[in-house]
Amino acid sequence: MNSAGIAAVHVTICYHENFSEMIKNVISWNEYFEKFPNLIIHGRNINDVSMAHKSGRTAIIFGFQNCSPIENNLGLIKICHQLGVRFMQLSYNNQSLLASGCYEENDTGITRMGKQVIREMNRVGMVIDMSHSGTQSTLDAIELSERPIAITHANPSKWHAVPRNKSDIVLKQLAESGGMLGFSFYPHHLKMGTECDIDDFCNMVAKTADLIGIDHIGFGSDLCQDQPDSVVGWMRNGTWLKEKGKSTIPGFPGQPVWFQNNQGFSNVLDGLRKVGFSGQEISKIAGKNWFNFFKKSFVPSGTELDP
Amino acid sequence: MNSAGIAAVHVTICYHENFSEMIKNVISWNEYFEKFPNLIIHGRNINDVSMAHKSGRTAIIFGFQNCSPIENNLGLIKICHQLGVRFMQLSYNNQSLLASGCYEENDTGITRMGKQVIREMNRVGMVIDMSHSGTQSTLDAIELSERPIAITHANPSKWHAVPRNKSDIVLKQLAESGGMLGFSFYPHHLKMGTECDIDDFCNMVAKTADLIGIDHIGFGSDLCQDQPDSVVGWMRNGTWLKEKGKSTIPGFPGQPVWFQNNQGFSNVLDGLRKVGFSGQEISKIAGKNWFNFFKKSFVPSGTELDP
Repeated sequence: MNSAGIAAVHVTICYHENFSEMIKNVISWNEYFEKFPNLIIHGRNINDVSMAHKSGRTAIIFGFQNCSPIENNLGLIKICHQLGVRFMQLSYNNQSLLASGCYEENDTGITRMGKQVIREMNRVGMVIDMSHSGTQSTLDAIELSERPIAITHANPSKWHAVPRNKSDIVLKQLAESGGMLGFSFYPHHLKMGTECDIDDFCNMVAKTADLIGIDHIGFGSDLCQDQPDSVVGWMRNGTWLKEKGKSTIPGFPGQPVWFQNNQGFSNVLDGLRKVGFSGQEISKIAGKNWFNFFKKSFVPSGTELDP
Repeated sequence: MNSAGIAAVHVTICYHENFSEMIKNVISWNEYFEKFPNLIIHGRNINDVSMAHKSGRTAIIFGFQNCSPIENNLGLIKICHQLGVRFMQLSYNNQSLLASGCYEENDTGITRMGKQVIREMNRVGMVIDMSHSGTQSTLDAIELSERPIAITHANPSKWHAVPRNKSDIVLKQLAESGGMLGFSFYPHHLKMGTECDIDDFCNMVAKTADLIGIDHIGFGSDLCQDQPDSVVGWMRNGTWLKEKGKSTIPGFPGQPVWFQNNQGFSNVLDGLRKVGFSGQEISKIAGKNWFNFFKKSFVPSGTELDP
């Protein structure tokens, strides 16, 4: 990440963990911060990101892919924010206490508790992330949230129609409310998967910029590097699925040749140039847009102290 | 507290709570911060204390009277620091995993885990507090800790000989290593208890200043205001004592007339003037010494980010 010039990355602190299991993951990261101070720092606010950028390091921003760590306790949102968590998905594939997941047949929209959670996340400065949520829940969250939300890692479903990708309606509402979309390089989100063509990908980025504006797009690589296949099993199945056959615990798909790891960002930026983006536009997509979004999103509202 | 001009107070977040029980107490305080922003703010560093002072509010600094919230997990120290905890006693009356308590017959000194914990507390910027610990454990902690430690609330045992008060040897070692003593107004720590004479108390402060220097003393009122007697039961007995008869669950003793509540500080300052302290000396005892101690104690060491 350092050598690829990545100043900040949003890392997954939870898929299905409850509060105390999540604490163990934070402890692991705290140990990394202590062990590798020349490579990474804990990214809690925009100053940490700037500091990482200036010193050639990478700021690690904590995010939950699921709301499981807050269990059914509103007070745990502030606690998680105090521990450095800056993103939380309201649901991960399945129905949660707060919202429906993108693989559910029926979408409840935002639940009663979900409405309370959105208000509290707005208050403390934690970004609502709807990457794995259902369409109605996502539209509800955009409307209910007083602060812009994010779809940190997904692509337009018009380009590649899978439940994890997002409709034009969702993307337009997202951008109109000041939100951000991070384009994903995860093969299941790419047209042709592992074989996805980089020019095709960059054309999709250009069309999305035309649709929702150049200020609302960035990257959300969804890169799972050097992780054992058991991690896919945990991501997909957690502890909620009875049958864990071969079809339900697949391995990680191979990454496209042009994004094997973070060094691949240079290929993507070259590709964007090729499809006609200017240098200024590319720098927005490559980081400036997320930086500006972090700036307005991580600061608590009202009387809360800065993190 | 506001009207008494108290800019910072060290509040008890735990007596015997384990990690998840402690989290509930932090959540309660977070709710107070949200509800009463004109009265209190969360005191995490010296800037928060200055801000409280300037705006006539009180900074609430979290402290553990016991090490029970870190259970047997070194990683929980940093987690607790992230939540704002700035003081932790290594033991509370009884033997702990880290040190002996002041009511134990035999004092182990600092244990194997205790040595690890002291190093980690030094690293993250959490003050070692030995108020309820045994003599040998306290002397060990002073020697082992690379940063000054505190006895936040106790009095000299030469003045009033009870196990909770501290010997001249302990107090001298404490001060020589840059540590702080907070004089307690809790009746069981006072000569004559509730009937303690304010001139006698202030003379004791003067003698302590002569013994260990004017720069190492302050107040640690140990004030339990408007708490039900059940709190004394929890303090004393936690969940470890089988017999909970009348003798083991006493009520709170009455406060001396000159310190019924925080407004009583003005009586104490008047008393200090009467026994010969100068205005400059009184301002050190009343807050400057603790402020300087906080300044050097809450900042993490080495590569850790500021809290």
